[in-house]
Amino acid sequence: MSLTDPDRLFPAEPGLRALSRRLYDSVADLPIVSPHGHCDPRWFAENTRFPNPAELFVIPDHYVFRMLVSQGVKLTDLGVPRVDGGETEADPRKIWRLFAENFHLFRGTPSAMWLNHSFQFVFGLDKPLSAATADEYYDHIDAKLATPDFTPRALYERFNIELLATTEGALDDLKWHKEITASGWGGKVVTTYRPDAVVDPEFEGFAGNVEQLGALTGEDTASWDGYLNAHRVRRAYFKEFGGATASDHGHPTARTEDLSRDEAAALFQKALAGTCTPEEADAFRGQMLTEMARMSLDDGLTLQIHAGSRRNHHKGVFATHGRDKGFDIPGRTDYVGNLSPLLNAVGMEPNLRVLLFTLDESVYAREWAPLAGVYPCLRLGPPWWFHDSYEGIKRFREATTETAGFYNTAGFNDDTRAFCSIPARHDVARRSDCAYLAGLVATGRLGEADAFEVAQDLTVNLARDAYGLK
Amino acid sequence: MSLTDPDRLFPAEPGLRALSRRLYDSVADLPIVSPHGHCDPRWFAENTRFPNPAELFVIPDHYVFRMLVSQGVKLTDLGVPRVDGGETEADPRKIWRLFAENFHLFRGTPSAMWLNHSFQFVFGLDKPLSAATADEYYDHIDAKLATPDFTPRALYERFNIELLATTEGALDDLKWHKEITASGWGGKVVTTYRPDAVVDPEFEGFAGNVEQLGALTGEDTASWDGYLNAHRVRRAYFKEFGGATASDHGHPTARTEDLSRDEAAALFQKALAGTCTPEEADAFRGQMLTEMARMSLDDGLTLQIHAGSRRNHHKGVFATHGRDKGFDIPGRTDYVGNLSPLLNAVGMEPNLRVLLFTLDESVYAREWAPLAGVYPCLRLGPPWWFHDSYEGIKRFREATTETAGFYNTAGFNDDTRAFCSIPARHDVARRSDCAYLAGLVATGRLGEADAFEVAQDLTVNLARDAYGLK
Amino acid sequence: MSLTDPDRLFPAEPGLRALSRRLYDSVADLPIVSPHGHCDPRWFAENTRFPNPAELFVIPDHYVFRMLVSQGVKLTDLGVPRVDGGETEADPRKIWRLFAENFHLFRGTPSAMWLNHSFQFVFGLDKPLSAATADEYYDHIDAKLATPDFTPRALYERFNIELLATTEGALDDLKWHKEITASGWGGKVVTTYRPDAVVDPEFEGFAGNVEQLGALTGEDTASWDGYLNAHRVRRAYFKEFGGATASDHGHPTARTEDLSRDEAAALFQKALAGTCTPEEADAFRGQMLTEMARMSLDDGLTLQIHAGSRRNHHKGVFATHGRDKGFDIPGRTDYVGNLSPLLNAVGMEPNLRVLLFTLDESVYAREWAPLAGVYPCLRLGPPWWFHDSYEGIKRFREATTETAGFYNTAGFNDDTRAFCSIPARHDVARRSDCAYLAGLVATGRLGEADAFEVAQDLTVNLARDAYGLK
Repeated sequence: MSLTDPDRLFPAEPGLRALSRRLYDSVADLPIVSPHGHCDPRWFAENTRFPNPAELFVIPDHYVFRMLVSQGVKLTDLGVPRVDGGETEADPRKIWRLFAENFHLFRGTPSAMWLNHSFQFVFGLDKPLSAATADEYYDHIDAKLATPDFTPRALYERFNIELLATTEGALDDLKWHKEITASGWGGKVVTTYRPDAVVDPEFEGFAGNVEQLGALTGEDTASWDGYLNAHRVRRAYFKEFGGATASDHGHPTARTEDLSRDEAAALFQKALAGTCTPEEADAFRGQMLTEMARMSLDDGLTLQIHAGSRRNHHKGVFATHGRDKGFDIPGRTDYVGNLSPLLNAVGMEPNLRVLLFTLDESVYAREWAPLAGVYPCLRLGPPWWFHDSYEGIKRFREATTETAGFYNTAGFNDDTRAFCSIPARHDVARRSDCAYLAGLVATGRLGEADAFEVAQDLTVNLARDAYGLK
Repeated sequence: MSLTDPDRLFPAEPGLRALSRRLYDSVADLPIVSPHGHCDPRWFAENTRFPNPAELFVIPDHYVFRMLVSQGVKLTDLGVPRVDGGETEADPRKIWRLFAENFHLFRGTPSAMWLNHSFQFVFGLDKPLSAATADEYYDHIDAKLATPDFTPRALYERFNIELLATTEGALDDLKWHKEITASGWGGKVVTTYRPDAVVDPEFEGFAGNVEQLGALTGEDTASWDGYLNAHRVRRAYFKEFGGATASDHGHPTARTEDLSRDEAAALFQKALAGTCTPEEADAFRGQMLTEMARMSLDDGLTLQIHAGSRRNHHKGVFATHGRDKGFDIPGRTDYVGNLSPLLNAVGMEPNLRVLLFTLDESVYAREWAPLAGVYPCLRLGPPWWFHDSYEGIKRFREATTETAGFYNTAGFNDDTRAFCSIPARHDVARRSDCAYLAGLVATGRLGEADAFEVAQDLTVNLARDAYGLK
Repeated sequence: MSLTDPDRLFPAEPGLRALSRRLYDSVADLPIVSPHGHCDPRWFAENTRFPNPAELFVIPDHYVFRMLVSQGVKLTDLGVPRVDGGETEADPRKIWRLFAENFHLFRGTPSAMWLNHSFQFVFGLDKPLSAATADEYYDHIDAKLATPDFTPRALYERFNIELLATTEGALDDLKWHKEITASGWGGKVVTTYRPDAVVDPEFEGFAGNVEQLGALTGEDTASWDGYLNAHRVRRAYFKEFGGATASDHGHPTARTEDLSRDEAAALFQKALAGTCTPEEADAFRGQMLTEMARMSLDDGLTLQIHAGSRRNHHKGVFATHGRDKGFDIPGRTDYVGNLSPLLNAVGMEPNLRVLLFTLDESVYAREWAPLAGVYPCLRLGPPWWFHDSYEGIKRFREATTETAGFYNTAGFNDDTRAFCSIPARHDVARRSDCAYLAGLVATGRLGEADAFEVAQDLTVNLARDAYGLK
């Protein structure tokens, strides 16, 4: 019995399937390049065991708990922490059982595919998870986690990871990355510069954060020039002590601005004073994207724009449980008008890398591919979040390749904090891409030899290039 | 000779086709659950014969006459009634011939599939409809309609309908439903509470309608509290005398509001006075959706939101022929922002059922699936109107399943006033769903046993659950 | 060795592939009807040789040079002319080599398919283009171009073109069309009335252009009535001396207006005075679409609306290289509200032909098919520009056929200035349509005999009908 089909995600038609498999076999063993994600660097610094199956698979995975919530399960019954430290379910086995008895809810979802992949290939399980097998699963996984082969570093090595990027706020001291480096361990865990807390006037405690940025850098962050300098200093720090190759920006829109120095400085003072209107806050975030792109020209960091999530849609859940609790909902996002200021300012620079990520697939063929198909700085990031799936990848390739080709895309990102799902996610991407390539070959749109080359590019080369690796 | 292919809508690849057929065979004979539609309850109360083929298939079917109009046929030549009672074609055979000689226009459309299914399985015809066979068709159908096996009740039974919901305005006396109940006939024809005429300030005669609502209920509908009470009374009436399990709301947008009592009351007075701006009218409709959701918490009716139709696009046709004449055109619709007030008010209630219907497919993956994949009250209604088709269902499943799964969807609705098309429409849905499930199984995304279970759920269980049936 | 697969674009499943091929074989040899495009009529008037491979395939083809630019190649290195007449690469062989060594960038794009088709079927080449074969290609093509079989007229005949429409501005004297007619050559090269320069208040030199329009027509174009009359006169001129069957309008939105005579006249005066706001300029363009539709009622020209391109996105490139340099990016486009004034004014006229073209595929199922599926004047133009591709055609058919059918579409347009790509583009369209039709037949959605009829219609009949040919 097996939880996964060896030919999963390959087309049913025998010829297509055989070619998909041959393409996949040529890339299946390539190392995992993971240049953007949210794993905790502390895991690799301390290298202690993961506490239990619920804390590994359920509590931190918003894909998992949001689906359970959608059918009436309470976040507290899943052990998801409360902002006020109030009581939540403390027995991981109870949480696991609740998850197991609702596992049918995930039918047809990528979560089911990722979880089954982890169960089978990471933990050696072979029966379907259900209420009946919940305890058997729990005991099995828990016992494995207690062994040396299942520590974070052991798994990192077993997963054949070439590089794993984490994401830290601009004020982070990168303590764990320094410890990893100091430990002499061979794994490559790098950071990413994520300055939302000091770039978004609407972030909790913005002014204080900016003050702290000043303290950390010795720059006068009460002035616009000092503030920009402080960013430069932190970016250099992230490069030096965390191996950063990119910055990352999570904004509700893709808005950019290219204001005059005086306008920008005035807006910054408003932001510090907490008197920005929502419109002005958006403009300031937009100005900072262009500033960051200019800094990238100097220091070579890749600029990642993750736009379009309307975060914390339910105010009550935000009040009780805080951010990132499954209530971030995508919205319509414009790129043509919104990116215009940044692209007019620096878009023709051949050495700049600006990576786009979207939650609005309607832009793929209409805006994304035409933009990336002409601006030298742009690369299209892989399908993100709700679109990181077989159908999502299929729609992305079908809608972008004809106008942007393959070489204006940026390879795959797993973008996850669910460590055990990393091999599963890269496997889904490799299979989906190979299925797509096989279709191109079979319909005379791509030569077979070319397809094998493109498969390598999509699996490792484009990611390395997009993030300036190697 | 046959008008339909026994393997229609199943994928061409032999393995997929065989599995699709096995899945379909497991659900093909399940009863039809039709919890939302627009059949006339009078048919089942009086149980007299349908007048003639033109009045059965052409004159009431907006899918049919709009296509003919698009190629230059006049509504009056099709016998579609005029608002002023002016002359229209009165000879049903002439209308039928006009339809028959243009039947090629429907190539590739669901209408062709529904019509051919009815011709073959309801009436036993086996030659293609064309100018040459028009009279033969007419005589054959007309003769059948004269026989007892073709009365509304006989067809209802032959169609194996478990429940058929009609839709009545809030002021309707439910006379026909009462007669059906009194008749002792075993068919289950229930009503749905559709209060547009007393909820939409822009509806013709709104103030008078509200006054009539007061008269019917004994409530003072000149006051906000009395008006809300009157709704409660009518909803109870619809439940008691019409077996209602749901309310239904057809608004141009998905806007909801959660105003303070005073704000809502003031807006209501403006609505009664006829002084609402379009913006205020939209806000009032939005407020009423939230009020209806609150009433649903008390009385258990499912709340259906059919949003996004820009009705009566051509003013001239509206003036001569009135509503529902094929000139209702979908428009871009926002759900993330628009549903926020309602969802923040009552979205986490596990016993509330809010069913969404859309004419804007771009929201499926971007807004719909993420919302329904986390809010306990939400269920995604099936593809509606122009999207109730093989490709429409395919796009719906492919775009929603990965994020919302199957259990946040609501089964199938035929939503029709074309009685004879009901079996055809459910057949298309069952086949399309089974084709989709077969694809999941063949690509390792769903276990085969699970697929058979899901097929049952999609065919009957999810509809029953969404409308609180059984 | 062959650059193209004889079964390209046909589905991999053997049954579907065989049927696709049979359908394709039935239309492959039909003449090319090209009722909209941008070839230069001078080619056919003078019939001199094309200068060299770079000027034939690279310099004028925005699909080609934009992709190279997206990977850091400079427009000047590709010989694309500068506005100021400044230096650009002058050696066509160098340009060709740069193109050849980057040919892998086009993998998976329609450009690769069109180019390979031309290389093989027009020039008899059979090795893949690459840095290694660049010179061999150059010499081979250049030598062919020197022979009589490769002059414009010879190629026109060899391509089996029935009619080729070019596009000229309203002020054009149609000198080349007159010369073609006078030459007695049998080819049918007709013009199209494209009045953007005298209809768009934001066009460079609008007022002067309108004055020139007056001079050409003898009408007083300083007055609204005279201005409209001048259009009537020019349209008649384009019909008489250029064989025009259509007008064409390239606007950033699909906005139409139906203003009163006085309002329109006042807006026109503002336009002449150069005092229109952007909003008023858009309104004026919108008014002119409705005026043009009214003129079409009189003179029978088909009205083409090419809406939704945000032109000249990068101001710097526009300044150095001017229009049409690959920086035109599609944007979201509304049709339901925007077309309402025109459709309410003249939309029910059965003899009017209004052809829509869009760069926003999200409107296909939501707005386009419902509109064209009811308004007699509307026909849906084929996938345009970035969507003129296998996937683009597939999405178009899948999203529009179920609601609009086939007979509210307008056949294929190549819409190109890349003459040698014309057979390739029509071939892609024919293959893509036949693949789609085969799928309908195999899934029981269309009878096989009907499919053969529809294939003929899609290939030639619908285009002839949409443009009033024959």
